[in-house]
Amino acid sequence: LRASRRDLARLLTRVENGHAHDELSTLFPYTGQAHVIGVTGAPGTGKSTLVNALAKAYRAEGITVAVVAVDPTSPFTGGAILGDRIRMRELSGDPGTFIRSMATRGSLGGLAHTTSDVVRVFDAAGYDVILIETVGAGQSEVDIARAAQTTLVVEAPGLGDDVQAIKAGILEIADVLVVNKADRPGVEHTVRALRAMLDLGHRAERVLHHGTLMAAADSARLPALPDEMTAWQTPVVQTIASEGTGVDEVLARLHAHRDYLRTTGTLIQRERAHAQAELLTRVRDALFTKWIAGQDQLLLGDLIARIAAREMSPAQVVTRLIDGG
Amino acid sequence: LRASRRDLARLLTRVENGHAHDELSTLFPYTGQAHVIGVTGAPGTGKSTLVNALAKAYRAEGITVAVVAVDPTSPFTGGAILGDRIRMRELSGDPGTFIRSMATRGSLGGLAHTTSDVVRVFDAAGYDVILIETVGAGQSEVDIARAAQTTLVVEAPGLGDDVQAIKAGILEIADVLVVNKADRPGVEHTVRALRAMLDLGHRAERVLHHGTLMAAADSARLPALPDEMTAWQTPVVQTIASEGTGVDEVLARLHAHRDYLRTTGTLIQRERAHAQAELLTRVRDALFTKWIAGQDQLLLGDLIARIAAREMSPAQVVTRLIDGG
Repeated sequence: LRASRRDLARLLTRVENGHAHDELSTLFPYTGQAHVIGVTGAPGTGKSTLVNALAKAYRAEGITVAVVAVDPTSPFTGGAILGDRIRMRELSGDPGTFIRSMATRGSLGGLAHTTSDVVRVFDAAGYDVILIETVGAGQSEVDIARAAQTTLVVEAPGLGDDVQAIKAGILEIADVLVVNKADRPGVEHTVRALRAMLDLGHRAERVLHHGTLMAAADSARLPALPDEMTAWQTPVVQTIASEGTGVDEVLARLHAHRDYLRTTGTLIQRERAHAQAELLTRVRDALFTKWIAGQDQLLLGDLIARIAAREMSPAQVVTRLIDGG
Repeated sequence: LRASRRDLARLLTRVENGHAHDELSTLFPYTGQAHVIGVTGAPGTGKSTLVNALAKAYRAEGITVAVVAVDPTSPFTGGAILGDRIRMRELSGDPGTFIRSMATRGSLGGLAHTTSDVVRVFDAAGYDVILIETVGAGQSEVDIARAAQTTLVVEAPGLGDDVQAIKAGILEIADVLVVNKADRPGVEHTVRALRAMLDLGHRAERVLHHGTLMAAADSARLPALPDEMTAWQTPVVQTIASEGTGVDEVLARLHAHRDYLRTTGTLIQRERAHAQAELLTRVRDALFTKWIAGQDQLLLGDLIARIAAREMSPAQVVTRLIDGG
C-alpha cells in the first residue's frame, strides 16, 4: 500500500504472470477508492494523446494517476505499444504518475481479468484516478473498458464508413463522448451525428448486458440486476488533445460523472454487475483448468484428429467428454 | 444439401439461435469441401467493397460464393451491417451467391462458434468458396478470421499511427495481404512498410498460438501441433476494389494459396489446430453451463454482493465455489 515504485512494478509483473493470488486477496479490501475510467475508441482517434493530456491535467490538480494501456497489437509476440517510450519520457520523473502497458498474451478474456487485477493494485496503492486505455474497438476491448466505472469514448471526424458503423455499438457504453481532432474538417457533422445517435438512446440496457456471460447467467435465472438510472446525459466534448484544447472540459465532465455515480447509487450497481461478470468468467476458466488437468491427453488428441477428419462433429465429442455419452 | 434458398436461410437462423445441433451433426460429414477465406483488417480499409468485388470475380469463373459478414457494430442491439442492403441488391438475383450478416449477440467467443457452424452449413450446401468478413481488428476478430483456411488481411494507405501499431499483430496471420485504395497518396510507403514487416516474419508461431485456449492446453501438455511449413511467401497485392483494379490478381493468389494448402499438408495441420481450439472452447462453455444450472442462485447473488462490498475477493469466492473451500 505504501510500496516503492520498484516494488509496485515487481508486483504488477507478478500479477500479469498470474503469480500474485495471495497478494491480490490481501490488498482487495483496500480497493474501491480510485475513480476507474475506461478510454476506448477506434484506431486513429488519438486516444493515447488524449489519455496523456488527461493525465497531465489531473496532475495539475494534484490528483495522482495510473495509466493501464491495453495493447492488442500482437496476439503472438506481445509487442509493446508504439510510442510508449515517448509517453513514459513525457510523464516520467513525476512520482504521481505510473504508466503500465499490457500486451494481449493468450486470450482477451484472460486479459480482462488481468486488467482488473492491475487496476486493483493501483487502487490499493493509493492512485486517485486509473485510466484504462484500450486500442481498438472490438467487443472485447469494449468489455475491458466496461470494467471501468466511467467509460470515455473517443471519436474523430472523417474516419470512414466502417468507423461510423462501429459507433452504434460503442456509443451505448459512453458516459462521456469526446470528438478529438476537432480542427479537422467535418467536425460539426460528426458531433451532430453523435448527438442524434445518443438521442436514440439504448443506455438502459447497459447493466443487463454487462460482461460476456450474461446469456448463460440469464438462462440460469441469476437474480436480474436493476436497470441503471438514466439521469446522466452523456455529454459530447470537442478536443484537440495534441494542443490541450478542451481537455479541462473533459476533466470537468469526468469529475461530474464520478459525483453522479456516487450520489445516485449507480456506482454500486455497476460494481455488482462487474463483480458478477468477473466471478462467472473466473469460475468458467477454473472449471476448465480443473477438467483438462484430469484428461487423458492421448485420447483428446485422437478425438481432435477425428473432428478434423469429419468422423465426429465437435458437438458429439463434447457430449462424449462431458456426459460420458 | 440440395436445399432451397429459403430452407437454407431458415436453417441458418436456427444455427444462429443455437437450435440446430442435430442438423449440424448430420451435415458435418459433408463439410470440408469449400475453400474458407477469412477477410479482416482495420476500419476504413474498404473490406466490404473488396469482398463484393471478390465475390463477383469468383462468380465470373463459375465458382459459387457464400459471404458471412460478422458485424460487431452493436454488442447490445445486434444491428445489421451498414450498406448490407446495397450489397444484397448488387449480388442478389444470382443463385450462386448467398450473403449472411451475423450480429454479435452475447460473446464473441460464442460468435466464433456460430460462425464456424454457419460456414459448415454453406460448406455442406455445396458453396465452393466461403468468405468470412470481420469488421474490426481486435483479437477476437482475428480469432474468427483464423478459423478460415486462408486469411486475407486488408490494409489501406494513410490510416494513422494506431493502425500502424495494429499491423504488427495482424500481419502475422496474413496469407494474402491486400493494400486497397491504392490510388491514395502514400501507397508505396505502405507497401514498403508491409514488406519490411513481413520479412521480420513470425509466421511459424501461427499454429501453436491458434485459438484462445492454447495456454491452458499447453499447461495440460496436450500433444503439440507441428509448426507449419513456411514455404508460402505472403504476397502484397495492390487493389482499388471500388473500380475492380487488382481483384483478379488477388483471386489468383487465393487460388494459389488453396493449392499450397492442399499439396503441402498445411490444410490438415490448420484443420487440426482449428478442431482443437473449437473443441476446447465448447468443452469450457459446456462445463460452465452444466455448473451454473446446479447452483443455488440466492447464494450466488449473495457472494456477488460480498465481492462488490470488498468482503471477499473474486479468487476467494471461486475457490469456495469450485473446491468447496
